[in-house]
Amino acid sequence: MKRIPVAVLGATGAVGQRFVQLLADHPWFEVTAVTGSERTVGQPYGEGANWVIPGDPPPAVARLTVQETQPNLDVPVVLSALPAKEAWEMEPWFAEAGYAVVSNASSYRMTADVPLIIPEINPDHTGLIATQRANRNWPGFIVASPNCSTTSAILPMKIFQDAFGLEAAIMTTLQAISGAGYPGISGMLISDNVLPFISGEDDKLEMEPKKLLGRFEDGQIQMADIRLSAQANRVPVMDGHLASVSVQLGRPVSGSEAIEALQTWCPPEICAGLPSSPGRVLIYRQEPDRPQPRLDRDTDKGMAWTVGKVRRCSVLDLRYMALTHNTLRGAAGGALLNAELLVAQGYIKM
Amino acid sequence: MKRIPVAVLGATGAVGQRFVQLLADHPWFEVTAVTGSERTVGQPYGEGANWVIPGDPPPAVARLTVQETQPNLDVPVVLSALPAKEAWEMEPWFAEAGYAVVSNASSYRMTADVPLIIPEINPDHTGLIATQRANRNWPGFIVASPNCSTTSAILPMKIFQDAFGLEAAIMTTLQAISGAGYPGISGMLISDNVLPFISGEDDKLEMEPKKLLGRFEDGQIQMADIRLSAQANRVPVMDGHLASVSVQLGRPVSGSEAIEALQTWCPPEICAGLPSSPGRVLIYRQEPDRPQPRLDRDTDKGMAWTVGKVRRCSVLDLRYMALTHNTLRGAAGGALLNAELLVAQGYIKM
Amino acid sequence: MKRIPVAVLGATGAVGQRFVQLLADHPWFEVTAVTGSERTVGQPYGEGANWVIPGDPPPAVARLTVQETQPNLDVPVVLSALPAKEAWEMEPWFAEAGYAVVSNASSYRMTADVPLIIPEINPDHTGLIATQRANRNWPGFIVASPNCSTTSAILPMKIFQDAFGLEAAIMTTLQAISGAGYPGISGMLISDNVLPFISGEDDKLEMEPKKLLGRFEDGQIQMADIRLSAQANRVPVMDGHLASVSVQLGRPVSGSEAIEALQTWCPPEICAGLPSSPGRVLIYRQEPDRPQPRLDRDTDKGMAWTVGKVRRCSVLDLRYMALTHNTLRGAAGGALLNAELLVAQGYIKM
Amino acid sequence: MKRIPVAVLGATGAVGQRFVQLLADHPWFEVTAVTGSERTVGQPYGEGANWVIPGDPPPAVARLTVQETQPNLDVPVVLSALPAKEAWEMEPWFAEAGYAVVSNASSYRMTADVPLIIPEINPDHTGLIATQRANRNWPGFIVASPNCSTTSAILPMKIFQDAFGLEAAIMTTLQAISGAGYPGISGMLISDNVLPFISGEDDKLEMEPKKLLGRFEDGQIQMADIRLSAQANRVPVMDGHLASVSVQLGRPVSGSEAIEALQTWCPPEICAGLPSSPGRVLIYRQEPDRPQPRLDRDTDKGMAWTVGKVRRCSVLDLRYMALTHNTLRGAAGGALLNAELLVAQGYIKM
Repeated sequence: MKRIPVAVLGATGAVGQRFVQLLADHPWFEVTAVTGSERTVGQPYGEGANWVIPGDPPPAVARLTVQETQPNLDVPVVLSALPAKEAWEMEPWFAEAGYAVVSNASSYRMTADVPLIIPEINPDHTGLIATQRANRNWPGFIVASPNCSTTSAILPMKIFQDAFGLEAAIMTTLQAISGAGYPGISGMLISDNVLPFISGEDDKLEMEPKKLLGRFEDGQIQMADIRLSAQANRVPVMDGHLASVSVQLGRPVSGSEAIEALQTWCPPEICAGLPSSPGRVLIYRQEPDRPQPRLDRDTDKGMAWTVGKVRRCSVLDLRYMALTHNTLRGAAGGALLNAELLVAQGYIKM
Repeated sequence: MKRIPVAVLGATGAVGQRFVQLLADHPWFEVTAVTGSERTVGQPYGEGANWVIPGDPPPAVARLTVQETQPNLDVPVVLSALPAKEAWEMEPWFAEAGYAVVSNASSYRMTADVPLIIPEINPDHTGLIATQRANRNWPGFIVASPNCSTTSAILPMKIFQDAFGLEAAIMTTLQAISGAGYPGISGMLISDNVLPFISGEDDKLEMEPKKLLGRFEDGQIQMADIRLSAQANRVPVMDGHLASVSVQLGRPVSGSEAIEALQTWCPPEICAGLPSSPGRVLIYRQEPDRPQPRLDRDTDKGMAWTVGKVRRCSVLDLRYMALTHNTLRGAAGGALLNAELLVAQGYIKM
Repeated sequence: MKRIPVAVLGATGAVGQRFVQLLADHPWFEVTAVTGSERTVGQPYGEGANWVIPGDPPPAVARLTVQETQPNLDVPVVLSALPAKEAWEMEPWFAEAGYAVVSNASSYRMTADVPLIIPEINPDHTGLIATQRANRNWPGFIVASPNCSTTSAILPMKIFQDAFGLEAAIMTTLQAISGAGYPGISGMLISDNVLPFISGEDDKLEMEPKKLLGRFEDGQIQMADIRLSAQANRVPVMDGHLASVSVQLGRPVSGSEAIEALQTWCPPEICAGLPSSPGRVLIYRQEPDRPQPRLDRDTDKGMAWTVGKVRRCSVLDLRYMALTHNTLRGAAGGALLNAELLVAQGYIKM
Repeated sequence: MKRIPVAVLGATGAVGQRFVQLLADHPWFEVTAVTGSERTVGQPYGEGANWVIPGDPPPAVARLTVQETQPNLDVPVVLSALPAKEAWEMEPWFAEAGYAVVSNASSYRMTADVPLIIPEINPDHTGLIATQRANRNWPGFIVASPNCSTTSAILPMKIFQDAFGLEAAIMTTLQAISGAGYPGISGMLISDNVLPFISGEDDKLEMEPKKLLGRFEDGQIQMADIRLSAQANRVPVMDGHLASVSVQLGRPVSGSEAIEALQTWCPPEICAGLPSSPGRVLIYRQEPDRPQPRLDRDTDKGMAWTVGKVRRCSVLDLRYMALTHNTLRGAAGGALLNAELLVAQGYIKM
């Protein structure tokens, strides 16, 4: 089978490197173009990218010449790991030029006619692509994936919303260093320390779930009516975002009832056929000391949610802890899964 | 002035070492006896204690011979850093034998006739000593200090309770390694990791504030009527417990009103004269990225609370972050301050 | 093909867990018995082992009942992850009872008639098994693998010895936390710290290379005549031992000549067919900042040596840095490779 | 007594902040001017400096306006924490304009007529100031202090050189994160990792000791004739550089003889009167697991050397481990001590 050629925009950064790594030997996609910052344009990718993850760049990509981020790439699909500001400028140009833009950037997540997608949560929201094209007269489109911290917390919320109704959530996150990219956070700041601040993160945690958990109706997203309160923290852990969440539900629910809801939940059928889908989407751990970033982040290729410590909350209804790998499920892996969903749904043609 | 001789019980452990360190050159107290585990009994303290904090044991104490923990020590006051189980057995024997037992152990914190004290919060609760003596016919007494994680979170709660009323709190803590003592947590577990479980800690966080914030009336503590929900986490930070807290108040309060309440709060007058009182009891930091364990834990000799990020919570009323040094304010320093309070109040005679 | 049943001795510890993990789906071996400490005997392995590495125990092994470490196991081969003291007692009993004992323990490494093996270094030293059996009248035998720190440093030494002669080496190691097993080192000791002491490690580093680099002649090992000086340090890194080595050679050698020797070196032919052999045994990195534990330890399934920074030493002849994964190549993986070598050499029968 | 007004050049960086911190309440000097990067010029120091060390800037300095680094400051003495390139340009202008330039920068350390000073090692080398002034016709002068890694290793070398003769040294360093300044090293690079490369550091370690241990004769430094070989590593430790050193001496020396030389060594008399001199310059620890960065770096206000593990080396003569605090003794504290020495010697007038 011929693979779909894709370009990775911003391929030299930390998330771009993860895209390149995940796309090596991908059954549906093949990286045939990479773009990077001015400093790296014209260099072979293997030299321009300062590879900061274990292993080496796949040789086929290492040989590609880094190009400028311009909508003149000979591919139908671009995976965007651009910084927010650059994404803000460039992604619409790509969509206007006919590209399918599958983005990990924050720029258009909350834009009304841009789908914000996690395939296991709201695959039907891609219906918004029609609205987007109609509004903007674009042959291409933009599809966004949520913030890595939102991703950690969201799946139990979704399951509880469906099972019991969801009214409010109070979140405190413990986020990994790699979430800030490279060079990202100074070693001097994060060593032997916690930083109780990640710029813009609390707002994302308080907004994105409303869209992800909203309903697609009449060509629009009806935002979920949930009150959200978030405090994001950076902890000295390499990978893996942990969320400590208390939720208020539509009715009182016991811990065991909630655990059963998690354990019996099934992802939407369309997810099963996507190459990057994890074998198990949600793993519920009974041990009192799980999930843990180091032990659980890589489960099922870093694409699973590990959830634990579901129990009654004496103030709201339930508490839980949830973990995902922030640069895999929470960034490059999540966006790649979105691209696969778009193929399965016919928005991207094989 | 002649100093009061004191013994440190369990002096060879991590908290015991902090007691010894803090009591070097203390104006009111002098360590004249130390007790330790079977392994160390009979050795000079300087050899028996495997000193795990920076610096060396004070020479005068290093020369003391480690004794068994038995109520035959020639001192009127014992500072207890015993493990909970041993404290459970031994502390009553000491009280029965006439000693003033100022304890850092968890064993009797929630016992109805044992005062649980932070001098800046509830110095009047020492009135319970009379009840305790009456109930048990003890010439001595036991006074407890709270858990290190409770300590981190409690001061803003107290101030908000007084100013606005306090109905509920949801807490997620990020606690330091040293809180588990020595050897404590395996390096293999905590490196590059978060442990979302500290045995018994959630219960302590959900119980102790009710007593600390209760009212002393008719010789008893009326527990505060507050709903509390806690999730304790261990993070790879050496010292300094951070608490992320959302509170529900008696009435809606703006962030700035709450900050003003913190900034204008004054500790009880009796605290001013205690040698271990910090210059500033509460420091409010305006920066969005404070408090931080590494930068703030040692403020005012590790005895201050650093608070920041007070703002509206979209689910309850307010959020805040608070930090204290867990082995200083949250353990040995806090218990020592209690001993000083007991001197100032006349329960311990100079 | 029928797989050879093996038992893992000391299977519940950190190295034992790695054995179990590596043996899942092994083409030649199948774990059919596990032994553990008194505390765990009689429990299903999945419950008795406090699993401290990512992932879960393989289900087939998780169901096995943990047995006592006694030579009554129904297998021809035992892989020993016993603590040194227990190995000292038990391994000879197993050999006497006819078992092939492939050990990761330090107990018999320097015993004259016990082969100390790294297949890529000295596969012919297994010839010593005949001597061992003759000396002791054992139907079985013991084969040892070297210390994890020795392993890190040794391969370039071997290659330089063969190419240029080797007279002396000065080593400083930077060793990972996992090398101490579980619970191993207290988190309080190793956080934000270096421990310049690992009990017995300097001696191992100064002895084992003489045996590994020795010659097997007339049924004995002629120890290599090399002067060795070592300083072992523990650093706050999870996995991956790094060795900083200066060597004195038989003749002056330029950096590029030495690098060429490394790059053109080929492992003994017998290694190619062993299932756990890495694709590349030695990777030479040209970058000035490699090898690095986090980036290089997992290369080729954690079984490769990564070497870098080969250059002239102004005092001896050459300097280099070498890295291996300490619990894979340096422990369980290395011992498993020895077991495979013994199959290939016919000492263990399929 | 009136204090000497000093300016701190590059006061907003990490070393500059240490200068400011150490000069608060200094008995001889008073900071009356601070300079900083373009971004910070014109701001109050308290706002321009992004304070990355515990505590807050001293209020008196926090109120100073950050100035450009130009030789128009109304002080006789400047303490330079400038980056190397800027120091290269600016320090000669200051000397030419009559300032006493006491520098922590690397730019002129190896310049023939610039004294490279550690007061306890070579206080007489300030005699080179006369040569410098004669050569360059400067009313002021430049005095340099060595690299932080050189500092860690040097004191035992000096003592052994004096006692036994010193011919060669092989060094492997384990250096702290703070040595790279702020923001310095990416948290993503250094977490759970060792970086076996610090740009330019090996060269500094192989050159600076020759000058520090050289002889001042006839207005010049005769470089010490020592062969030096160095491998610098960055480890995930906040503060404290550790050096693992093997030395070849003028004659064979036993470990105990060497330890005695260290323990009986006395610093030059002039050091005793300098305000920043530590009470004990060198602490020899008998424990096999010392020195350790976390436990020993702050000894005697971070100005002491902690040395341990002196023993025979089987290849050269002796091995040892030495530690100093890299931003105190190894940077700002060391340079400040140089300024104090220059006062005591009359090069700077009170």
